[in-house]
Amino acid sequence: MIPRYTPKDMAELWSDKTRFAVWLDVELAACEAMERASLVPTGTAAAIRGKQLALEPPRIDEIERTVKHDVIAFLTHVEELAGADARWLHRGMTSSDLLDTSLAVLLVRAADGLITRQVAYVRALVARATEHATTPMIGRSHGIHAEPITFGVALAGHAAEAARGIERLRAARDEISVGKIAGAVGTYAHISPEIERDALSGLGLRPETVATQVVARDRHAAFFVALAVVGAGIERLATNVRHWQRNEVGEAEEAFTVGQKGSSAMPHKRNPILSENLTGLARMLRGYALPALEDVALWHERDISHSSVERMIAPDATTTLAFMQDRARALVEGLVVYPERLRHNLERTGGLFFSEALLLALVETGLARQDAYVLVQRNAMKALKEGADFRASLLADADVTARLGQARIEAAFDLSHALRYATEIVGRVSGSA
Amino acid sequence: MIPRYTPKDMAELWSDKTRFAVWLDVELAACEAMERASLVPTGTAAAIRGKQLALEPPRIDEIERTVKHDVIAFLTHVEELAGADARWLHRGMTSSDLLDTSLAVLLVRAADGLITRQVAYVRALVARATEHATTPMIGRSHGIHAEPITFGVALAGHAAEAARGIERLRAARDEISVGKIAGAVGTYAHISPEIERDALSGLGLRPETVATQVVARDRHAAFFVALAVVGAGIERLATNVRHWQRNEVGEAEEAFTVGQKGSSAMPHKRNPILSENLTGLARMLRGYALPALEDVALWHERDISHSSVERMIAPDATTTLAFMQDRARALVEGLVVYPERLRHNLERTGGLFFSEALLLALVETGLARQDAYVLVQRNAMKALKEGADFRASLLADADVTARLGQARIEAAFDLSHALRYATEIVGRVSGSA
Amino acid sequence: MIPRYTPKDMAELWSDKTRFAVWLDVELAACEAMERASLVPTGTAAAIRGKQLALEPPRIDEIERTVKHDVIAFLTHVEELAGADARWLHRGMTSSDLLDTSLAVLLVRAADGLITRQVAYVRALVARATEHATTPMIGRSHGIHAEPITFGVALAGHAAEAARGIERLRAARDEISVGKIAGAVGTYAHISPEIERDALSGLGLRPETVATQVVARDRHAAFFVALAVVGAGIERLATNVRHWQRNEVGEAEEAFTVGQKGSSAMPHKRNPILSENLTGLARMLRGYALPALEDVALWHERDISHSSVERMIAPDATTTLAFMQDRARALVEGLVVYPERLRHNLERTGGLFFSEALLLALVETGLARQDAYVLVQRNAMKALKEGADFRASLLADADVTARLGQARIEAAFDLSHALRYATEIVGRVSGSA
Amino acid sequence: MIPRYTPKDMAELWSDKTRFAVWLDVELAACEAMERASLVPTGTAAAIRGKQLALEPPRIDEIERTVKHDVIAFLTHVEELAGADARWLHRGMTSSDLLDTSLAVLLVRAADGLITRQVAYVRALVARATEHATTPMIGRSHGIHAEPITFGVALAGHAAEAARGIERLRAARDEISVGKIAGAVGTYAHISPEIERDALSGLGLRPETVATQVVARDRHAAFFVALAVVGAGIERLATNVRHWQRNEVGEAEEAFTVGQKGSSAMPHKRNPILSENLTGLARMLRGYALPALEDVALWHERDISHSSVERMIAPDATTTLAFMQDRARALVEGLVVYPERLRHNLERTGGLFFSEALLLALVETGLARQDAYVLVQRNAMKALKEGADFRASLLADADVTARLGQARIEAAFDLSHALRYATEIVGRVSGSA
Repeated sequence: MIPRYTPKDMAELWSDKTRFAVWLDVELAACEAMERASLVPTGTAAAIRGKQLALEPPRIDEIERTVKHDVIAFLTHVEELAGADARWLHRGMTSSDLLDTSLAVLLVRAADGLITRQVAYVRALVARATEHATTPMIGRSHGIHAEPITFGVALAGHAAEAARGIERLRAARDEISVGKIAGAVGTYAHISPEIERDALSGLGLRPETVATQVVARDRHAAFFVALAVVGAGIERLATNVRHWQRNEVGEAEEAFTVGQKGSSAMPHKRNPILSENLTGLARMLRGYALPALEDVALWHERDISHSSVERMIAPDATTTLAFMQDRARALVEGLVVYPERLRHNLERTGGLFFSEALLLALVETGLARQDAYVLVQRNAMKALKEGADFRASLLADADVTARLGQARIEAAFDLSHALRYATEIVGRVSGSA
Repeated sequence: MIPRYTPKDMAELWSDKTRFAVWLDVELAACEAMERASLVPTGTAAAIRGKQLALEPPRIDEIERTVKHDVIAFLTHVEELAGADARWLHRGMTSSDLLDTSLAVLLVRAADGLITRQVAYVRALVARATEHATTPMIGRSHGIHAEPITFGVALAGHAAEAARGIERLRAARDEISVGKIAGAVGTYAHISPEIERDALSGLGLRPETVATQVVARDRHAAFFVALAVVGAGIERLATNVRHWQRNEVGEAEEAFTVGQKGSSAMPHKRNPILSENLTGLARMLRGYALPALEDVALWHERDISHSSVERMIAPDATTTLAFMQDRARALVEGLVVYPERLRHNLERTGGLFFSEALLLALVETGLARQDAYVLVQRNAMKALKEGADFRASLLADADVTARLGQARIEAAFDLSHALRYATEIVGRVSGSA
Repeated sequence: MIPRYTPKDMAELWSDKTRFAVWLDVELAACEAMERASLVPTGTAAAIRGKQLALEPPRIDEIERTVKHDVIAFLTHVEELAGADARWLHRGMTSSDLLDTSLAVLLVRAADGLITRQVAYVRALVARATEHATTPMIGRSHGIHAEPITFGVALAGHAAEAARGIERLRAARDEISVGKIAGAVGTYAHISPEIERDALSGLGLRPETVATQVVARDRHAAFFVALAVVGAGIERLATNVRHWQRNEVGEAEEAFTVGQKGSSAMPHKRNPILSENLTGLARMLRGYALPALEDVALWHERDISHSSVERMIAPDATTTLAFMQDRARALVEGLVVYPERLRHNLERTGGLFFSEALLLALVETGLARQDAYVLVQRNAMKALKEGADFRASLLADADVTARLGQARIEAAFDLSHALRYATEIVGRVSGSA
Repeated sequence: MIPRYTPKDMAELWSDKTRFAVWLDVELAACEAMERASLVPTGTAAAIRGKQLALEPPRIDEIERTVKHDVIAFLTHVEELAGADARWLHRGMTSSDLLDTSLAVLLVRAADGLITRQVAYVRALVARATEHATTPMIGRSHGIHAEPITFGVALAGHAAEAARGIERLRAARDEISVGKIAGAVGTYAHISPEIERDALSGLGLRPETVATQVVARDRHAAFFVALAVVGAGIERLATNVRHWQRNEVGEAEEAFTVGQKGSSAMPHKRNPILSENLTGLARMLRGYALPALEDVALWHERDISHSSVERMIAPDATTTLAFMQDRARALVEGLVVYPERLRHNLERTGGLFFSEALLLALVETGLARQDAYVLVQRNAMKALKEGADFRASLLADADVTARLGQARIEAAFDLSHALRYATEIVGRVSGSA
């Protein structure tokens, strides 16, 4: 979480202020559940709420420097502000009841922000895919021209992937929508399952199936790896934009704002820096997923090794992805597409991409596939090496014309036939957000 | 995949023999769909099936050394064996139609094996958890005695985590139950969406929403990270067994078979080697997940950088997890539990773990929480430092007895009360596999 | 970099203030070199230095919001403050000349801090190893008692590992002590190799052997993976402290400060939280190393995907390690060692660890090794299972006494013989920092 | 290690046959050292050597299935073959003395193979860099044309990076050139430091400074991360080849062998599959480095969690890198370079890359840098957007000509001046292997 890459809502979500406010919410929710279970005097939580405590994070830090325990510092501070009623807070609870439940509340909020953003990103992709559903483009595998697609089909592929990202984020949200108010080692020694259910339901959470001292960390691992997978999807788009924008391709480029400068040395440059930035950030998400996976195997009923990790990756990973989603959406919305250049590149190989149609036509005449392959390849190579016109070359090849007449050869060079399913394909993502 | 860690079914699944058999299945399924669509003469696939081709992997390798393309080598070999009919195979398809669809078939089979194993592992955990639902044990956080749990509750926590693993494997299976028969760049240039659906449904797969030349690799990333998460859950169990077995704890240990030797130098040793082995293998699964995440951002309509990765991690990761599941299940089934030792360790701190009950009792008398904490801690520290009896110490502390009478102090030392929910907790996992 | 885990010097090093000050240093160093090469009017840099510019990071950020280029924003701001002379700055340079050279300066400073800290950490380990060079302790493999060592030998192992860390940090520092003042794509189009050498030598750097637009990122990858290796060494110590401190072992524990509270619920707890914290942070260092490795393969003469990564990991990884080193050193210095408990645990197995001495004695009588193993193991198992006294059991075993008389059996139970090399071993690390 | 990616020497190195042969070597070296120290009857090792034992790996596996301990199985088998003398083998040693020392022997041999290969790879790069030292090419940052370089300079950058790889591999080799013959927990209980030194020196190894039961795993972590860094360097080359080969660039391409087929569907395709393959394998090396880093923090004097990891990554990582090096070397040697295409692309932007020279010329006239930037950028953008000739545009811009006469404008368009250091730069790597 560095200011440069931190959306405002994420800065607020992960502030000390919000964290301690959520802590108080959780304590009060637990307190109210205990009131209903007659473990705590009725009205305790209401009395504290009524005081509208102005928590001071620096004071909590100060206390923590002595007691070396953040939750005790927090409770001490609440007691300073709220007086005697506060002694009922945290009754029968362990620090992790508070911390893990609060972390769940914060991660769920973060996840909601990520889901909303992913939906917006998908919508942007779908809109641009629809706009360019029939804009022809050369499809490339290995960076080499393959057969025609449309720019819309390319974007629809990204939209479909991003839409899977929505589902993955929802599943990830569900994984961590789990709190715990079950006492020191999860046995409800001084509390009850009913109190836990009651307290958590008010917070939008459900109880951990079987808790230790903490909510199990396989949930958090699943959460953070999901973020890495979603980020990798954005990385794929960013990588493609970087390819499209290179001078020799020039098919699309990032919007360039007025006043923007591309290079301190070279005034002519317009670089795909947003996309390159997204590429780097996707690497960070992979890096953040790793310690989350290592956190799973806590010792016995828990050790606290996950804590330092989560203090860093919970804000860092969610913020990084949120920033990426905002940036990726804006990138897609602003992407400048050059249809003439798309057409120019498509035509660069003189219809070589129709070679498969010719191969199939030859096979249909009864020729063995491998023999047909040789026939087509020799004309293709002639075109590639000697700059010969592929169609003319085929028409002049007696072995080819012996099997295919001119009409069948020319029929193979039909772009609209090759792209006849483009609109249908793009249509598949139209409802995906 | 080294023999030492490879279950027999996984060795077969990832053999050349199986791979090429699946390739032939996919080509024939596609051929039949094309027959139904009248693109290929009816009976072609049936004729080839009738010949019961005995594919020879070494011959395919030999051809590949010349053509440097595995699919072309395979098709050439099929043509050698099946004759002219084979020219209809692979019609309008690209290599990835065959490869990705086949990979999906293989990964789905692997996933089925993993799900079955995970279910067996959960069952073993549930059985042992039920057996020890009320066997008391000290719960530990930070490796330090906290409050009592039961051995069954500890195992139930692992069972609940492993049961989530079943769901994650099912979700992962679903992610990659996707094939593609859509031609060079996914546009059905010489084929149709209907043919794709038809061919894939016979193979138990569904079509990629929007394909490029390949099935999108976010799916595979999601698959392999899921394996890493499931493996991390097993690692948590393994870590706990390693703790339980250490001399000073001695609460449970791995079954030791007749003839087994613990050390080449020290005849008295019985080491938790299965669990340590599982710990190492969980690391491998994390290592395999990483390149899968990097594979997502393929260039344009695909590059082939994912191929070398998947040739290695598809067998390695699925096999490693399958081996882990088998081993973990056997470990749980054979785990030797020592209830007397559990009881001995529980009592080691002289009931210090009842300190929270005393803290709460003091708070209930109206004492501020932090003051109560100080009162209890000073008696706890006396017990820890000077070996004083905790209960006696409390009974002799005037500040304590001024607030709590002897009866209330003694009532706090009630193990069965502390464990009253153990059976209910264990019950939560009873139906989880 | 979160305040909780950020040493003061690291906060300063990675502040905007320091960064821009280093940028100015680099520009002025380059300017001076160009003055000496007569490319820039003599006295330009001196004139700017004379103005003691008070750079304002917020103003630079403001300009960047328009020009979307941090270096151009910086130069514009310098021109605002320094006036006309500033037009000579950055002459013939590209942004990366400034950025990469500055990053090198900052990373070198960070590395110096890390090396100093690692030396202090090694010294602390050596001091405590020396103190306990002959304090007997049971050595453990697999968490199971093996043969005796001393506490000093255990710490000496950590010291030796940490001393290797010093070397690794020095090598890492050397890897990134490399700047670049070579223009847009490293060809010195408007500059010269002499200017580069001259400018960099004043900054304590050497030129990149062959630059692209940037210093090659294999250097940074090597730097950040070195940090992860060093962190893993600290993790090993932390893991051992966590073992030593557990109730059942109790051989050593973290210093517990006055006022510190172990648990919000359980007043009796003293948890190894420093060590657990170090364990988590070591995971973070692994997570930070990963994107650095992915950054190596920049496109062509560079893409900027490494930039977002380095903005985050350069401060985060160096700060995390610095914090770990400080904490680990303090942990070692304050570690409370319990020699009686060490002795108690050592004796827990009734001398079973002398089984190897007995094995060897039997082999020396001419018995085959495997037969000897069986003889010793059966007495060891009797001791383990039935609580029999190992020595007595051996003395009562006719097969053993037939080969070894009482004296030779008893001679095998000699602790001082087993530990006769302990002081020599500890001595090996005495000069290592 | 799959056959497809396994060089022959690596297959042999990591065979069971070689492993057991090395084990025997280590045992005999230790035996001889003990003979010299009079712990074992003189002539024991010589007698066993004289028998030229034909070790049978399957028989060892068979024994292991009973004893569940590989070293004991090995020693039992040796005793079967060698008879009574063999009882002196392994005297006072623990399994790890044998295993870790043998692993060091194998890793050192592997490292030697990797170093040799890396040298060959560097040589190939240097040769091709020298060949093309003055072949002009457009340098690119962000995939966008920047300023001219030469193809030789580009390759020299790779050569310099690969040469650093040689040093890293040497350092890595040195890290793991360490054995251990120090008994159960490294204390020489039944052995001596002299014996260890003596035995190891014959094997080309030095003793671990302070061993636990094992050689410390920070060494292996450093080894495997070094492989990942070296692999990432190869990945950078592979990535650039993939860019160079794309249709729109076409500056260089992988050699295409006779008979090779690029696509099963498209006969015209020539794909950079070697480079893509290398990219994927570099990911694998990162994946293998990770568990090695997690292996460092073994428990106490060791646990065996590293063993399963190393059984897999020791062969897999070294073999993968060896394969990559062979392939990368061949790729470089066979790389087909197209100088005309390089020239064509260079000229594509009509000399826009001279914009910096113009910028500097304007600054030299006394214009503020940012004003000069604006002047040049507007002409550059005109060229980019409207296809105007950059030089003509500048000559027609009154603001420009007011400051620079025609001669100075034209002088800025001087390619040979821009590339005057190319030969010197390439020369820097000439002696690097």
